[in-house]
Amino acid sequence: MAQTTYKNDLILRALNGETVERPPVWMMRQAGRYLPEYMVLRKKYDFFTRIQTPDLAAEITIQPIDIVGVDAAILFSDILTVPKALGLDVQMVPGKGPWIPDHIQSPADLARLTESGAVADMQYVYDAIKATVKALDNRVPLLGFAGSPWTILCYMVEGQGSKNFAKAKGFCFEHPKAAHQLLQAITNVTIGYLNEQIKAGVAAVQIFDSWGGLLGPVDYQAYSMNYIQQIIDEVEGAPVIVFGKGCWFAYDSYTNSGAQAIGVDWTIAPKTARELAGDKITLQGNFDPIRLLSPIPEIERLTKEMIDGFGKDRFIANLGHGIIPNIPVPHAKAFVDAVKNYKA
Amino acid sequence: MAQTTYKNDLILRALNGETVERPPVWMMRQAGRYLPEYMVLRKKYDFFTRIQTPDLAAEITIQPIDIVGVDAAILFSDILTVPKALGLDVQMVPGKGPWIPDHIQSPADLARLTESGAVADMQYVYDAIKATVKALDNRVPLLGFAGSPWTILCYMVEGQGSKNFAKAKGFCFEHPKAAHQLLQAITNVTIGYLNEQIKAGVAAVQIFDSWGGLLGPVDYQAYSMNYIQQIIDEVEGAPVIVFGKGCWFAYDSYTNSGAQAIGVDWTIAPKTARELAGDKITLQGNFDPIRLLSPIPEIERLTKEMIDGFGKDRFIANLGHGIIPNIPVPHAKAFVDAVKNYKA
Repeated sequence: MAQTTYKNDLILRALNGETVERPPVWMMRQAGRYLPEYMVLRKKYDFFTRIQTPDLAAEITIQPIDIVGVDAAILFSDILTVPKALGLDVQMVPGKGPWIPDHIQSPADLARLTESGAVADMQYVYDAIKATVKALDNRVPLLGFAGSPWTILCYMVEGQGSKNFAKAKGFCFEHPKAAHQLLQAITNVTIGYLNEQIKAGVAAVQIFDSWGGLLGPVDYQAYSMNYIQQIIDEVEGAPVIVFGKGCWFAYDSYTNSGAQAIGVDWTIAPKTARELAGDKITLQGNFDPIRLLSPIPEIERLTKEMIDGFGKDRFIANLGHGIIPNIPVPHAKAFVDAVKNYKA
Repeated sequence: MAQTTYKNDLILRALNGETVERPPVWMMRQAGRYLPEYMVLRKKYDFFTRIQTPDLAAEITIQPIDIVGVDAAILFSDILTVPKALGLDVQMVPGKGPWIPDHIQSPADLARLTESGAVADMQYVYDAIKATVKALDNRVPLLGFAGSPWTILCYMVEGQGSKNFAKAKGFCFEHPKAAHQLLQAITNVTIGYLNEQIKAGVAAVQIFDSWGGLLGPVDYQAYSMNYIQQIIDEVEGAPVIVFGKGCWFAYDSYTNSGAQAIGVDWTIAPKTARELAGDKITLQGNFDPIRLLSPIPEIERLTKEMIDGFGKDRFIANLGHGIIPNIPVPHAKAFVDAVKNYKA
């Protein structure tokens, strides 16, 4: 594949471990509800219309590049495209979040899933990527993503968001064989999904293990890392970032997985993250999203402290989790600018 | 004060760092919804009737001693007794959890709180302790408890349970001065509260920092540990257990705090917990509550593995968080029995 030349390729150089003039910066959920420009589109089009209409997804994806000036775009989409492609009825209930009325409740329910054809069913995602790449005009790289198989299982079994995903975990511990079948099916589809995203033009991919931190370290290996590892082994042509929220205990596995970067949440001190991960992998993170409510001078001070802790190289500045809706845009921009103006 | 002699004082010896024949065992929320005997009382009496009627609280507290055979009782009560004593209208909404309609929304709202008299307002707790101690007849020690000031602030500002307590954290970062005033007021009352619990007869106390893991390590010191430390410094006459969920990064502070034990959640491998905490403090935990849904032989295997990891001494077997409602009683009992039957 011909290498694309980006006007700003800072994030790819950081992923590649090169010495950079300053760390690149982007924010998880940067195309989201804190942006008034996004809220206009959110009021006009429902969730699946937004992610399934390529030009709309492209417009939303590019908003934060123009408005807050981040160094990478991440496709406006959702990790629940995969359960939908597997045949479940994924709904987005405003003010409540995802709801899957026909969620998996027993091992017999697995028969309802349709693994074959699932990768192709997500053509709308690949089309959105192509539209975004075209509209971006090589300004910055576009990132693709998928949920980790464990995190996807959580939603497929629980049927909705949850504090502890007790139903999903209970399903695994009561029916380990069925749980592993389900995880394998999700993994197979996710590998195809990410490879198609790369073919459509994303320059790197992130795996979101948002609920990995609900598992103890031994169960994490069996129910999550095993499948993340398969994905890393089979994804070709783009660097992989693994973000496991609450998964500090798995950094050693991430480092040895072949992934190019680890996404770090805000509960891990920068120096601790580096100790846990070793020196040979890029780290990404980890500003507490709610700290963006602090006064701007405090945001600037804390951002500098964060970069001092991680170091300028092998580091991608980001939040430690997604940006929340009530962050003032000037505060988000202050964070981005503090990274851009960083001096050691 | 005359030392009480208990028929089973295993937990006090473990807290004291003595060599024991086997680890003691109890379970967070052991007096709770998985017990049919508790559900009978829950249907008859509302939440505050249950915790404010000494004989009822005593009966509920003692149920798990009789039914699953744990080595310690923990008072049936709630951490939200403190916000209630401070003057807020704490309600328990069935199926939803706590709700505080007049929660703190701005610094000016602090003027509504009544610190003076708050410790005395919780006389019903001390009466429940006296009734329980009498009914227990020295079979096992009774534990008292309180929420950490940070965790109590979370509820007082958010007004209800939450996944990320964004309002509560936002309040702290937008109004740090008011946040520290509130934390100090909660701390003052909590010190008096725990000392009165000890005078009424509890043999040890646990501080629940259920939401400590929502703070980054630097903010944790400022907004949580500073106040936990004051409590440990001022509580007299009984050992203190600190349980900080998700707070692996603070174990060093806990170890140096003067507390006798650290409550460990299930995401920390036993050997890692010991490394983080050092050798001089008792550890308590850390069976994944949802792992109690596994078949009984698996529960037995995992319990043995857990004790092997922590070691027999300076260890109190427990869950890594509260037991959940849908655990079959024989599974809970299998966990307790596996500890009692432990052979290295």
